[in-house]
Amino acid sequence: MFAFDEDTTTHRSTESVWDVHLSDRWNIGPNPNGGYVLSVIAAALFDASDKPDPLSITAHYLRPTSPGPGRVEIEVVRAGRRHTHLHARLVQDTERVRVLAVFGDLDAAEGLTLVREEPPELPSPDECLTRAPGMTPPAGESTMMQRFESRLSPTTGWIRGEPTGVPEIAGWIRFADDRPPDVRSLPLFADAFPPPVFELGPAGWVPTIELTVHVRARPANGWLKARFATHVLVDGYLSEDGELWDEAGQLVAQSRQLAMLLPPVAPG
Amino acid sequence: MFAFDEDTTTHRSTESVWDVHLSDRWNIGPNPNGGYVLSVIAAALFDASDKPDPLSITAHYLRPTSPGPGRVEIEVVRAGRRHTHLHARLVQDTERVRVLAVFGDLDAAEGLTLVREEPPELPSPDECLTRAPGMTPPAGESTMMQRFESRLSPTTGWIRGEPTGVPEIAGWIRFADDRPPDVRSLPLFADAFPPPVFELGPAGWVPTIELTVHVRARPANGWLKARFATHVLVDGYLSEDGELWDEAGQLVAQSRQLAMLLPPVAPG
Repeated sequence: MFAFDEDTTTHRSTESVWDVHLSDRWNIGPNPNGGYVLSVIAAALFDASDKPDPLSITAHYLRPTSPGPGRVEIEVVRAGRRHTHLHARLVQDTERVRVLAVFGDLDAAEGLTLVREEPPELPSPDECLTRAPGMTPPAGESTMMQRFESRLSPTTGWIRGEPTGVPEIAGWIRFADDRPPDVRSLPLFADAFPPPVFELGPAGWVPTIELTVHVRARPANGWLKARFATHVLVDGYLSEDGELWDEAGQLVAQSRQLAMLLPPVAPG
Repeated sequence: MFAFDEDTTTHRSTESVWDVHLSDRWNIGPNPNGGYVLSVIAAALFDASDKPDPLSITAHYLRPTSPGPGRVEIEVVRAGRRHTHLHARLVQDTERVRVLAVFGDLDAAEGLTLVREEPPELPSPDECLTRAPGMTPPAGESTMMQRFESRLSPTTGWIRGEPTGVPEIAGWIRFADDRPPDVRSLPLFADAFPPPVFELGPAGWVPTIELTVHVRARPANGWLKARFATHVLVDGYLSEDGELWDEAGQLVAQSRQLAMLLPPVAPG
């Protein structure tokens, strides 16, 4: 069994409650990564939804989570012909994350297609930069990076201690255990890169306040190409826009999050 | 009293319920505009929140609304030191719209600022195109346009019956009765322009499935400059990104919505 599937297992205990267990294998510092936590909530939503694809999923991060048990409470807000809207709460002692989602069926969609964006231009994964564990702040306990193979664009500056001043990051990513990407794992990949604001200089924590992921297509097998950029940072509040592309050149997901850029904590 | 304030009046009837009345003065066709409906819900959220600025607000549109009475049910999900998260439901007979929002205090924010976007380049409002009532599909009953003065970029094609093929729209906008823009009205302005996909040719209805608005600054008095673009349209599902700038050149709001592009209904 792949790590992602093992660590997003849910058990429905009542009509509206799913028992979950947050693994310590997806931590950034001491806390599970927000995209991983969203994937656990989404796993319960996939179970509750009568439709296969999460067209849009919005998470409000209320408090950090911890590895260990929790429960996801789900309300089916409206199950329509085309779209099913769902509401979820992740509880560990108290509520940690609140979610709104809408599911549909991408296979049943029909209409015009026009994609005006291009995937990031990247050399082959072998010609990109490998992130060594511990290189991403907060250093030390981050287990999450071991779950992925990721290769950053050779233009990445902060990883060499030379921030470019341009808050953009691009690279290749896939699961370390070769699990194929799919619509279940796209919310995780949408939050699996270091924040592009690392290119502005030493940063502390970049806590996500709200994250919305739009799933636009079912990914082909292979690497994903990712691009994340912050265009607007005002008084420490930043928006971060992301795109995920599959090896077939399809745009498979878009993301936007609102986060805070907190300064590094002085040592000692 | 300005039309916007009159038409977003709320009356708190219990600890968690606000009585509202959707006006027929903000209709697109027979239904109130989604941004207007969101503003009515937001008016109740402003009343319930202990903080002044809606940093992020996400609406899921479940069913069309109608002019007439309704109620907004609000839960304060978490009132923290910096951020207060709230959850709301708009009910007219049945539930119509579900909302998640997070409020904060933009005056209290501190940290880095870096805005990498520029406002759209537009000639003066007098040199832009005026939208005549009835020019926007669905033609006829749309009362909403009378609430605004809006001037579209001279490069706008569809308004002259010559769609450019590039789904972007830019222009000036302000309230027709000179009400100053503020953080209460930004969710309305974020949905007050015609969909940029009108530049792709004749369109039917473009129903919003999910809309997220990030308020980034409190607007100065005067006109707003707006830019909306669709970069990704896949099998009839589109994302639409918007920016609103004030006359002082500040980016005051960003928006992204997921919507469907439905073909025009054949006459007869």
